Amino acid sequence: MTSPSVISLPFGHFDSRNLLMASAAFVRNIWYMAAWAEEVADQDFITRTLLGSPWLIFRQSDGAWSMIADRCPHRFVPLSRGRRIGDTIQCGYHGLTFDGAGQCVGTPFPTPVPENARVRSLPIVERHRGLWFWPGDADKADPALIPDFSFMDTSQDKFGRLTMAANFELIADNLMDLSHAEMLHVDTFGANGSLYTHGKQTVSNGEDGSIQNNWDITDATPPPFAAPMLEEGGRIDQQIHMRWHAPACMALKVGIFKAGSETRDPVVPTMISPHILTPESDGSTHYFYSHEPSQQAEDMTMRVFLGEDEPMVGAAHVAMGGDDFWDLRPVILPSDAAAIRARRVLKQKRSAELQDH
Amino acid sequence: MTSPSVISLPFGHFDSRNLLMASAAFVRNIWYMAAWAEEVADQDFITRTLLGSPWLIFRQSDGAWSMIADRCPHRFVPLSRGRRIGDTIQCGYHGLTFDGAGQCVGTPFPTPVPENARVRSLPIVERHRGLWFWPGDADKADPALIPDFSFMDTSQDKFGRLTMAANFELIADNLMDLSHAEMLHVDTFGANGSLYTHGKQTVSNGEDGSIQNNWDITDATPPPFAAPMLEEGGRIDQQIHMRWHAPACMALKVGIFKAGSETRDPVVPTMISPHILTPESDGSTHYFYSHEPSQQAEDMTMRVFLGEDEPMVGAAHVAMGGDDFWDLRPVILPSDAAAIRARRVLKQKRSAELQDH
Amino acid sequence: MTSPSVISLPFGHFDSRNLLMASAAFVRNIWYMAAWAEEVADQDFITRTLLGSPWLIFRQSDGAWSMIADRCPHRFVPLSRGRRIGDTIQCGYHGLTFDGAGQCVGTPFPTPVPENARVRSLPIVERHRGLWFWPGDADKADPALIPDFSFMDTSQDKFGRLTMAANFELIADNLMDLSHAEMLHVDTFGANGSLYTHGKQTVSNGEDGSIQNNWDITDATPPPFAAPMLEEGGRIDQQIHMRWHAPACMALKVGIFKAGSETRDPVVPTMISPHILTPESDGSTHYFYSHEPSQQAEDMTMRVFLGEDEPMVGAAHVAMGGDDFWDLRPVILPSDAAAIRARRVLKQKRSAELQDH
Repeated sequence: MTSPSVISLPFGHFDSRNLLMASAAFVRNIWYMAAWAEEVADQDFITRTLLGSPWLIFRQSDGAWSMIADRCPHRFVPLSRGRRIGDTIQCGYHGLTFDGAGQCVGTPFPTPVPENARVRSLPIVERHRGLWFWPGDADKADPALIPDFSFMDTSQDKFGRLTMAANFELIADNLMDLSHAEMLHVDTFGANGSLYTHGKQTVSNGEDGSIQNNWDITDATPPPFAAPMLEEGGRIDQQIHMRWHAPACMALKVGIFKAGSETRDPVVPTMISPHILTPESDGSTHYFYSHEPSQQAEDMTMRVFLGEDEPMVGAAHVAMGGDDFWDLRPVILPSDAAAIRARRVLKQKRSAELQDH
Repeated sequence: MTSPSVISLPFGHFDSRNLLMASAAFVRNIWYMAAWAEEVADQDFITRTLLGSPWLIFRQSDGAWSMIADRCPHRFVPLSRGRRIGDTIQCGYHGLTFDGAGQCVGTPFPTPVPENARVRSLPIVERHRGLWFWPGDADKADPALIPDFSFMDTSQDKFGRLTMAANFELIADNLMDLSHAEMLHVDTFGANGSLYTHGKQTVSNGEDGSIQNNWDITDATPPPFAAPMLEEGGRIDQQIHMRWHAPACMALKVGIFKAGSETRDPVVPTMISPHILTPESDGSTHYFYSHEPSQQAEDMTMRVFLGEDEPMVGAAHVAMGGDDFWDLRPVILPSDAAAIRARRVLKQKRSAELQDH
Repeated sequence: MTSPSVISLPFGHFDSRNLLMASAAFVRNIWYMAAWAEEVADQDFITRTLLGSPWLIFRQSDGAWSMIADRCPHRFVPLSRGRRIGDTIQCGYHGLTFDGAGQCVGTPFPTPVPENARVRSLPIVERHRGLWFWPGDADKADPALIPDFSFMDTSQDKFGRLTMAANFELIADNLMDLSHAEMLHVDTFGANGSLYTHGKQTVSNGEDGSIQNNWDITDATPPPFAAPMLEEGGRIDQQIHMRWHAPACMALKVGIFKAGSETRDPVVPTMISPHILTPESDGSTHYFYSHEPSQQAEDMTMRVFLGEDEPMVGAAHVAMGGDDFWDLRPVILPSDAAAIRARRVLKQKRSAELQDH
């Protein structure tokens, strides 16, 4: 009899001046990854909710990238309901057109273009196959601050993105303590518990603000998938090395070597892969990843990410009921060392930005 | 394992005294349209959420209309879960019966009828094929204040109602600036852009509080649907005249004439149609309309309203995220003149009513 | 394009110290029924949301019952996503194990067990086929305070549980005034209105805090299902006696006797059945009931509970819109006498507990 009046908002709250994003909860003066460049390459534009607000991303004819707020400042409809005309986006409701800097540059009426009509635009650059945006003060947006993911430049891997229904810091916790694989990923990775018994964890800070979480397993039984590459009863050394940059840009290196070879004798090729997280909202996260180009590798990735990690991390998100992580007084384990350092870095950055305002 | 405890409420919040509607957000001392009379004619009653609260509407045997709150004052169940007995409604839970004035007049128990058991009733009258109700002070409910929709009295058109998932003022904005048809309704109406190039907009206020928004297009190429009625290369004048009465009761007149005939030589019969909006809730709206009785006309109306207008206006509603229209500092175009006047009239009426309380 | 970030929470809000349940709205120092013992008997554990929080219930190998919070204090995932190992539950994320007292007693790492890792546990005992828990101060949890449901000890009936989407006090209102059967359950029970005309209601308080609501119908036409057991035109006396203990533990006795026999000549065997309500959350309720072991009896129970009672009581819950019952100034009928007494007892207990804090 009635239509529902309660509408789920996939994004957050807009600032009343339509120019600033309400992102107090997110660090602003930092690079986030918005998309893989190849996602946008042959599209007129893509639209994506990032840090709680909808954005429209497109490449101009001169190759430069543009990222503008996906909300017309006239009657607030998504510009993405319109269409691209040359290097502008025309609103599909009343026909105002906006350029890649967010400025209104055209109207179908004979009246002048309204000067005050513009939407916010953000610095966005392509680097290491990704598009990176800076939601804070544009004059601080130095591309040299983008973390080094140059291993992706020439990678033959397949790049992917999925959305996980959990706060991005809970997912970063998961990645910064991969010991959980021995418990959560037994069915997929065939973990054998050797990390617990033969593993040594080393946490260190890099000069570039990175945090390194290294698990080194020595003289252990090989994991099931590596056993066939060894002689009967052969033992291995294993590196599981994760590097983190704020806000949550991670690179994982996994190597398996003959035991005692001091990493000179790899059993399988060493793999390095991105695990880059960007908040879609407080409660959902874009996860940028890669895998070998085979269908088998894609299937395994989906089983691990969507079948094992997301249900667990999503359940934690729900169980926290909107409360702050620290207010819940979490028990901290030694294996949390790197994850906790990362959380503290973000906490400090958020506090510093709030004080500046 | 558990059933959901979060229940979407299609309606708003009830006043704690069960007698007053919590409608601070809505102008109260004004007539709203509740239904077409023919919707109720052969029904025991209908139930409809209006201004955020559920109501039960029925016609008594003497022909008078009744509108009572659809919530029993005993244990708060909808009276519409019960049944009609004569000119009363019997609650289906414990059997109290209520008359058309909302007074409890019967109980199945031998104990006396509880005197304090009554539900709110509102003034409701039939006028111009519609049922109009007055949610404010009953002694101010003068039917002479109902806007003149006498063109509906003898109309052969088919009347309809649909619910749009957007605040009613966003839909009124849409209707008070029909230039959007040139952009949004190209696929259906086959607009050709002549409004932009040959159109003149005139906005005026009527002595009865109405606002008139007239687009007059002169010496233009005919729209595709009218071209066959003209000689090759014939040109037209077109009137697109919209009249608004508060809160959002609109009448649209569309005429197409041979160019230069000063409206004396119509190319197609001039059409006049109601576009009457009543809030179901803050975020959903009853839209009362009419169309020619053909299936083709109904299909076209649904394509335009549900396929083109509602997705756009609904997206604006969602994007506003609950913020006030003015707080969002909208860009205002010359073509918004009438829509903005209408918004200001409502704003003044709301403020005046809040001051009175 | 985006995944939903709004997640319906079937349970409430956890206290920030992870040790106390946020149950201001619920009386704490009282026994609630959590489950039928037979629901857990051959399971590793069950998980159930009770008073707004998720709990994990299991029986230890020595037969003692355990009830611990279903949320790991490390990264807040449900322990029920893990597995039972002996008399402990192992978290499925990082492998901490917890005993039946909620203490962490194991970790897969060679590091010591974190001493501060524990989850809340509640007193829980088996009595009268049910498992009863005490969410308040453990030292006040005297099993002698569990209401007497000894009639269930040897019952041959089938025990069941369902969840109703309504606050438990609205369901208790329903049960404490069974006169509604004459209106709501006509299609199932075939009520004939004799309660209104031949019924006498007696409300009394027991020394143990119970409230008794007795309907006694004398010299009435038999209900349709009892008529075949009587000679043509035979008349009956009927008892519909409901006993209530806080918070909402009810026992119903229904007897039908030959009129004037002073209950000495039963027409059908007298039935006694539990109607025990435990809040799952503010807006949903576990309903523990029993019925004769036939399929026909089960079907009838479901028709009455889910087809008739729940839609009506659930609609009342929705219509109340989160407001307090008393703030809505309900009309009170004489037949509400027992229900209102029960509501006042709970209100006093809640107020007393709030004052103590």
